[in-house]
Amino acid sequence: MAKIVTMGEIMLRLSPPGYQKFIQADNFDVNYGGGEANVAVSLANFGHKTHFVSKVPDNPIGDCAVAALRKYNVNCDFIARGGERLGIYYLETGASMRASNVVYDRAHSSMAEAAAEDFDFDAIFEGADWFHVSGITPAISDGAAAVTELALKAARAKGITVSLDFNYRKKLWSYEKAGKVMTNLLQYVDVCIGSKEDAKYILGMNLSDTDKTGIEAENYINKDIFQRMMDRFGFQCIASSLRESYSASDNGWSACIYDGKEFYRSRKYELRIVDRVGGGDSFAAGLICGLIEERGIKEALEFAVAASALKHTIPGDVNLASRSEVEGLMGGDASGRVQR
Amino acid sequence: MAKIVTMGEIMLRLSPPGYQKFIQADNFDVNYGGGEANVAVSLANFGHKTHFVSKVPDNPIGDCAVAALRKYNVNCDFIARGGERLGIYYLETGASMRASNVVYDRAHSSMAEAAAEDFDFDAIFEGADWFHVSGITPAISDGAAAVTELALKAARAKGITVSLDFNYRKKLWSYEKAGKVMTNLLQYVDVCIGSKEDAKYILGMNLSDTDKTGIEAENYINKDIFQRMMDRFGFQCIASSLRESYSASDNGWSACIYDGKEFYRSRKYELRIVDRVGGGDSFAAGLICGLIEERGIKEALEFAVAASALKHTIPGDVNLASRSEVEGLMGGDASGRVQR
Amino acid sequence: MAKIVTMGEIMLRLSPPGYQKFIQADNFDVNYGGGEANVAVSLANFGHKTHFVSKVPDNPIGDCAVAALRKYNVNCDFIARGGERLGIYYLETGASMRASNVVYDRAHSSMAEAAAEDFDFDAIFEGADWFHVSGITPAISDGAAAVTELALKAARAKGITVSLDFNYRKKLWSYEKAGKVMTNLLQYVDVCIGSKEDAKYILGMNLSDTDKTGIEAENYINKDIFQRMMDRFGFQCIASSLRESYSASDNGWSACIYDGKEFYRSRKYELRIVDRVGGGDSFAAGLICGLIEERGIKEALEFAVAASALKHTIPGDVNLASRSEVEGLMGGDASGRVQR
Amino acid sequence: MAKIVTMGEIMLRLSPPGYQKFIQADNFDVNYGGGEANVAVSLANFGHKTHFVSKVPDNPIGDCAVAALRKYNVNCDFIARGGERLGIYYLETGASMRASNVVYDRAHSSMAEAAAEDFDFDAIFEGADWFHVSGITPAISDGAAAVTELALKAARAKGITVSLDFNYRKKLWSYEKAGKVMTNLLQYVDVCIGSKEDAKYILGMNLSDTDKTGIEAENYINKDIFQRMMDRFGFQCIASSLRESYSASDNGWSACIYDGKEFYRSRKYELRIVDRVGGGDSFAAGLICGLIEERGIKEALEFAVAASALKHTIPGDVNLASRSEVEGLMGGDASGRVQR
Amino acid sequence: MAKIVTMGEIMLRLSPPGYQKFIQADNFDVNYGGGEANVAVSLANFGHKTHFVSKVPDNPIGDCAVAALRKYNVNCDFIARGGERLGIYYLETGASMRASNVVYDRAHSSMAEAAAEDFDFDAIFEGADWFHVSGITPAISDGAAAVTELALKAARAKGITVSLDFNYRKKLWSYEKAGKVMTNLLQYVDVCIGSKEDAKYILGMNLSDTDKTGIEAENYINKDIFQRMMDRFGFQCIASSLRESYSASDNGWSACIYDGKEFYRSRKYELRIVDRVGGGDSFAAGLICGLIEERGIKEALEFAVAASALKHTIPGDVNLASRSEVEGLMGGDASGRVQR
Amino acid sequence: MAKIVTMGEIMLRLSPPGYQKFIQADNFDVNYGGGEANVAVSLANFGHKTHFVSKVPDNPIGDCAVAALRKYNVNCDFIARGGERLGIYYLETGASMRASNVVYDRAHSSMAEAAAEDFDFDAIFEGADWFHVSGITPAISDGAAAVTELALKAARAKGITVSLDFNYRKKLWSYEKAGKVMTNLLQYVDVCIGSKEDAKYILGMNLSDTDKTGIEAENYINKDIFQRMMDRFGFQCIASSLRESYSASDNGWSACIYDGKEFYRSRKYELRIVDRVGGGDSFAAGLICGLIEERGIKEALEFAVAASALKHTIPGDVNLASRSEVEGLMGGDASGRVQR
Repeated sequence: MAKIVTMGEIMLRLSPPGYQKFIQADNFDVNYGGGEANVAVSLANFGHKTHFVSKVPDNPIGDCAVAALRKYNVNCDFIARGGERLGIYYLETGASMRASNVVYDRAHSSMAEAAAEDFDFDAIFEGADWFHVSGITPAISDGAAAVTELALKAARAKGITVSLDFNYRKKLWSYEKAGKVMTNLLQYVDVCIGSKEDAKYILGMNLSDTDKTGIEAENYINKDIFQRMMDRFGFQCIASSLRESYSASDNGWSACIYDGKEFYRSRKYELRIVDRVGGGDSFAAGLICGLIEERGIKEALEFAVAASALKHTIPGDVNLASRSEVEGLMGGDASGRVQR
Repeated sequence: MAKIVTMGEIMLRLSPPGYQKFIQADNFDVNYGGGEANVAVSLANFGHKTHFVSKVPDNPIGDCAVAALRKYNVNCDFIARGGERLGIYYLETGASMRASNVVYDRAHSSMAEAAAEDFDFDAIFEGADWFHVSGITPAISDGAAAVTELALKAARAKGITVSLDFNYRKKLWSYEKAGKVMTNLLQYVDVCIGSKEDAKYILGMNLSDTDKTGIEAENYINKDIFQRMMDRFGFQCIASSLRESYSASDNGWSACIYDGKEFYRSRKYELRIVDRVGGGDSFAAGLICGLIEERGIKEALEFAVAASALKHTIPGDVNLASRSEVEGLMGGDASGRVQR
Repeated sequence: MAKIVTMGEIMLRLSPPGYQKFIQADNFDVNYGGGEANVAVSLANFGHKTHFVSKVPDNPIGDCAVAALRKYNVNCDFIARGGERLGIYYLETGASMRASNVVYDRAHSSMAEAAAEDFDFDAIFEGADWFHVSGITPAISDGAAAVTELALKAARAKGITVSLDFNYRKKLWSYEKAGKVMTNLLQYVDVCIGSKEDAKYILGMNLSDTDKTGIEAENYINKDIFQRMMDRFGFQCIASSLRESYSASDNGWSACIYDGKEFYRSRKYELRIVDRVGGGDSFAAGLICGLIEERGIKEALEFAVAASALKHTIPGDVNLASRSEVEGLMGGDASGRVQR
Repeated sequence: MAKIVTMGEIMLRLSPPGYQKFIQADNFDVNYGGGEANVAVSLANFGHKTHFVSKVPDNPIGDCAVAALRKYNVNCDFIARGGERLGIYYLETGASMRASNVVYDRAHSSMAEAAAEDFDFDAIFEGADWFHVSGITPAISDGAAAVTELALKAARAKGITVSLDFNYRKKLWSYEKAGKVMTNLLQYVDVCIGSKEDAKYILGMNLSDTDKTGIEAENYINKDIFQRMMDRFGFQCIASSLRESYSASDNGWSACIYDGKEFYRSRKYELRIVDRVGGGDSFAAGLICGLIEERGIKEALEFAVAASALKHTIPGDVNLASRSEVEGLMGGDASGRVQR
Repeated sequence: MAKIVTMGEIMLRLSPPGYQKFIQADNFDVNYGGGEANVAVSLANFGHKTHFVSKVPDNPIGDCAVAALRKYNVNCDFIARGGERLGIYYLETGASMRASNVVYDRAHSSMAEAAAEDFDFDAIFEGADWFHVSGITPAISDGAAAVTELALKAARAKGITVSLDFNYRKKLWSYEKAGKVMTNLLQYVDVCIGSKEDAKYILGMNLSDTDKTGIEAENYINKDIFQRMMDRFGFQCIASSLRESYSASDNGWSACIYDGKEFYRSRKYELRIVDRVGGGDSFAAGLICGLIEERGIKEALEFAVAASALKHTIPGDVNLASRSEVEGLMGGDASGRVQR
Repeated sequence: MAKIVTMGEIMLRLSPPGYQKFIQADNFDVNYGGGEANVAVSLANFGHKTHFVSKVPDNPIGDCAVAALRKYNVNCDFIARGGERLGIYYLETGASMRASNVVYDRAHSSMAEAAAEDFDFDAIFEGADWFHVSGITPAISDGAAAVTELALKAARAKGITVSLDFNYRKKLWSYEKAGKVMTNLLQYVDVCIGSKEDAKYILGMNLSDTDKTGIEAENYINKDIFQRMMDRFGFQCIASSLRESYSASDNGWSACIYDGKEFYRSRKYELRIVDRVGGGDSFAAGLICGLIEERGIKEALEFAVAASALKHTIPGDVNLASRSEVEGLMGGDASGRVQR
């Protein structure tokens, strides 16, 4: 059981039941989540000792967010309390060719306005094995970006393994701004989760050409750009989930990973989607879990893909698939047969 | 922003939640809708000034129906109040190979028993650009058929473009009765929405033979019958949605249109169905929207097909897909990717 | 209208709404069901005079179970009242590659602890045409196994046709124990529902080899093992449903039957699943219905497969598809078109 | 266990959840009930063999009404199937000084249009001990009034005890019409449930003056008018529930009875109301139960008042309070203490 | 039918169902409301032509707020679209001695940041008879206070009657700040709704002493302070609702009014509370309705008190009691008897 | 912040929504609670470091129970996992004169069958300040009674303050059995919560006579019996909540305490009940909180009574009233006024 720390914003998610449009809803389903919070829940669910670092308002809505994490065994001792409000995102769930629609109302949140003095990184990283953050946190405000760098520096100073998931959100910042900030932060990162599109649009790196076609071309391009990213930032490994969006209801789901030696592409799952929000976060959590348990990059990746495939069948932001469900699926049983 | 008038019955729809059978339900989802009412909501949603003409009882249930339309910005100034009751239809939603089941309880409704004096067509059509009605309204009663003819005459007299959707309902009238009434009404129509089956069974027109096969045969037969319908009734154009019912859960969805010069068949969507009721009405609304905005028949048809494809992903009778969602889908993005 | 008796346990089923995990649920959907109870409801729904024999506690929860059956027209005059508790099973509904998860809490139930004196089989079988039981009942306790044998003897003594569905539940007993008990009980059986896997693992019979491949091999092996089972136990016929579990959301569904003369394999349905619990029970009920109405084994099997295909689209344990829905599907209409 | 027959209309009740106004509701709670149907359920619940006679449409909504009765052990063998529709009533539940609001949509119902040939009263009354009907049934249509008289004559001819509850509904008929019809029907009645207001407004009988005040005056007037009603119609006894409507949330509830010898006024309960619909019907059922079990008029009345007091705490039309709950309350325990 | 304009903020209200605490809620009931929006809905509901002036974001959540008003027939032509977000308030509903708890999240809302150029007061007040605003609007921001003064000036310039409700919210501003702003705004007001506490704490006016006791003292003090407020600001009349908070479940509810000639105190209602939010707004709406229909101050006040008493029995912010329900209650029928 | 340990059973509570009877429910509200678990949640909610000791099955239902506690910040490190099942209780919520009805299904639960080896009391009581248990735990099984004694001895050995709440459940054991077991356990207790009825019926102690009447008599008798209980068992103090059950909807609620020197009777609250389950447990928690914070017995008692009064307004077993809500009510504000 490793000690893992994640840091980021936790938001209130408000979504009309089923496939209703916002305008039809007389009530909203309530969930609490956010990129790194979702990673924390998933890792706690797999049995690791997980801490989530954030700031939420000192009011009952902040209490709700904390309780939602505690329920799933995430340690909340380092969640600062104060500031103005809990960020909100409204989610209208799509189906078939209608995409889900997200309306952000997260400006002025406690985490967006958090500052260095809200966090005691010495205490936070005491005895920690891993620190994870995503590109959402530096995107929400300049202050949050500064706090992120502070955390990364502190983790690095303690020799803690650091993972970062690009998680680019175009409604939060431009490619240009993201490029500048991320380039700085990536120097502290050991395990990077990001796609070739992130490399191209955010880091401004060209994708190479190839005569290959189909999946071979994709693998070739991915391996090449991953190598160059590693060269540039010194990552131990890079992984990317690969989503094929046939529609809002059906997706293909796989991933690839590269550690400078071996490029590995996972099994692919055909997903019938219940809730795709948090799919990427559950992939990150699965990958961290696999790596921290020293399964090797192949098995770690398969664990991550199986875990995140299952996430798509679970309502809400967080992955509640059990370790045994993940391992069963990794082991090849995707039949969905009832056990009784 | 055009002024568009539709006329018909609005009903209370009562449906068990999810896929429950009627006998399992302890509560019914409540929606208010009906062929032409659905068209009105959809057109209002696309930004047009839309009036719905009908009659509903002067009681709280009638108030509910009116409020449901007003919510979506449909002008209800010409809804007469009085009569005995609001028509009802019970809907049990099917899945896979189990079809949805509709039980009508619409006899004696206020609209079925409405009369000429309930409507001031001079005022109703003042400044209007378009009038739409479907074959459901003349089917509900002889009185409603007479009112429909009156409306069509009044619209024609004012030079308003008239569209009519066959919308044949076998639980309401026979092919024979429909044939007699529709033949008379079609003389007032500019834009006709109807299928080759409508032509064959209701208008008694033979479908031509062809050596062609598959989609070419279908196109050939459609174009041919459309030409003969135009010859007979003087339509400006005829359009037909083309549903392939693989099951209650999955349909193919496309359409064709003919204006005497060009026969055009749209892109086809593969639908994962949330609620298929009102699919045809959303097609009619999309077509009217496209034509009134002078997009040309091809683009108008693609707008109609995209709009109605999206309707199938939205619970309830009415299409609440926004103009930008429709145009995004027309533009080719059917990937269902979340925007955030 | 035949008189049909089924005997077994009825349980309270508690399931989180939709695709929630147990840990997310703030309320549970409530259903009452169980193998033979589900058969009884389905047969009553098809119009037969159906009795369910069981024991439930003499408290309000027992009342609920009885009321749930009475609602669907099952005669409950022979349900004994007493004992400690109503058995429970918790059901978490899976989707895509996540299997549904069943947690049993059925030990110490009234039926598990029922004894001979709870049932007056003379009265129960008075005028009965058919008796059905499944392998679940003898599995729940030694006492229930003894009662099952008593019932089978009494039915046989009265010349009533007896059907038995293997319904092996690995969480209830071992193959070894099942083999011993079932071997004894099968001597009283006329119509057997069981798969080649049941024959192999429970009855210890070898499956034959064959050079054939695909469906032909499957048919060959099934016919061969069915012949040997008939030879051994003297069945009139054996039938088996054939589920292909692509995922928790999509299954292929067909069946085969053998009566010593003819081996028949049914049409196959591709299911989009709403609720697969009770699928096998609805197959048994459909088969009994078909045989008791003397449709011949082919039509009886097609009736059973269509009925049980429809069950998969209905929430809860019991099949509420009407006779006309089943016959419509048998007749070839799987299009899911709304009738209106 | 006596055999009791009731006859009347059963309707679909649609009510917004909680205290919502109709216009706020996105779903309606579904209940099935009606004056005499409610009496039947209550008597079945107390353990008597109860039959409900009615006519409902031969469609799934009619099936739902029948299933709702069967669930509570009411025999439905004499419910005719056919006709146009199931009557509906919409119920908006009031609170405090806001009254509940009922909107009827019951015209043209199967029962309203039922005729003599729908019912075989010889079979219906075979072995029956009691027949109950209310003034609602003759009010819904002239045909239903004729059927009511037929039933009353048949019951009388068989020597079955007959009870009738005035249950005047001003939205269904005028005092004048009611007076004419009821005067005729009352000649067949043994046990009458009706108030002094019924006597005054429907039967046109004057209420006597008195110098007494308060409860004594009320008792004096009631006894006097009851005596004159007995003289006129030959009743065995007359009972009346006495509701004090402080508000929609709080009522006083008691009753009085007279058998020509003794006038008895019951204990009074102060009700905190959950659902007051069916309160009168549960009183009638309690009275019938008490009288048929030969408890004497005092105890029968106390049973009826306790039963109907409890009804006011139960959602829906029907009284589901158990015999032991009623007897516990009669015995004086109104403390509401949890038993555990 | 008068034309009435109200201006203010409309918010999203999120409340746990029933009496749940925030931390227990897995879904929130969704309502849209705000002081002046509630007044607008109520006046539209009474049949007046009502306009609501505000600013909401140009996103789907803003659309929802507008649709919620349109549903109840409020004209939304003058709602500006733009800005950052729709204000939110979280409401936890209390019971018995537990108070309801409101958590505001309304900073940075579109209305709080609205400016003069968002509103064309010439067009807005064209043909208007009445303008209403409350003290909440100037409290939400300095900009909103400036817009409020602009609106008041414009209304006054057109000779439109102006009403203002103090509606002091201590979570929004201090007494001191409120005093300064309100003193300025009150110069434009004709009809003032405010309590003696508002006069004392906001306007800094002393309440007079008296030897009287109980209700006489209260009346004396109210009349005296009202006279002095009229002297100071030139009101036509002043009214105040009088709430006695026995508990969160039970309140006494009455009001008083003074027009410089007559001081009148209304009937008092004992309320069993369903939802007390918007109680004061429904009082303001009732008063405006009564005065604009020239009922005289006494009847206008009784209309206002009856209307707002009924509001307390209706879930949500807005009063949906019909004119006939209000007039029935004014006429003395508070019995809550069902009409059927 | 003190460290407090409680030990007992946690159960799944299944209750029909609102005031439905069991037989009406299509879903059950899900809560997890139990006497000492409820105490733990309440103390954690007041900010103390609270541990709950129990045993739950090692399955997903056991996980749910643990998560429910963790959500509210109860430390679950000492909950053993294993055994057969989680105990269940079904709760039908009463209203007015209809009592709530509890059906237990708790036999064979993991806690009932727990043994000494499941608990490491050395670790459990390490650094603890207080240990609390109730009379329910020894009642559920002889094994649980033995474990209770073990725990009490261990706590006493460590000098930890021990509180015990009689919590007599007549459905679990007889007075005689309870008397024998409790007499033994009480020797380890410092703070006793129990009523004069417990003393009389369980401990077999006579209540003294008195000439006093009303509340004075009650106080006299309570003080006298408390003195004798202290003499016999050596308690530091004894407290008793005093419930006056007017009905299931309305109760009077107060308490008394005695420490050998002073007898104090608290303020009395008139409760409008939302959910009375757990009322006694919230009283125990409030008392422990008050005593551990050294408020003195009077203020501790007032804290306990206010806390538990508020519990009655909150759905579910556990008291979620905040410390500030409790202190506000203690301070005299029972007006239920909204704070905004």
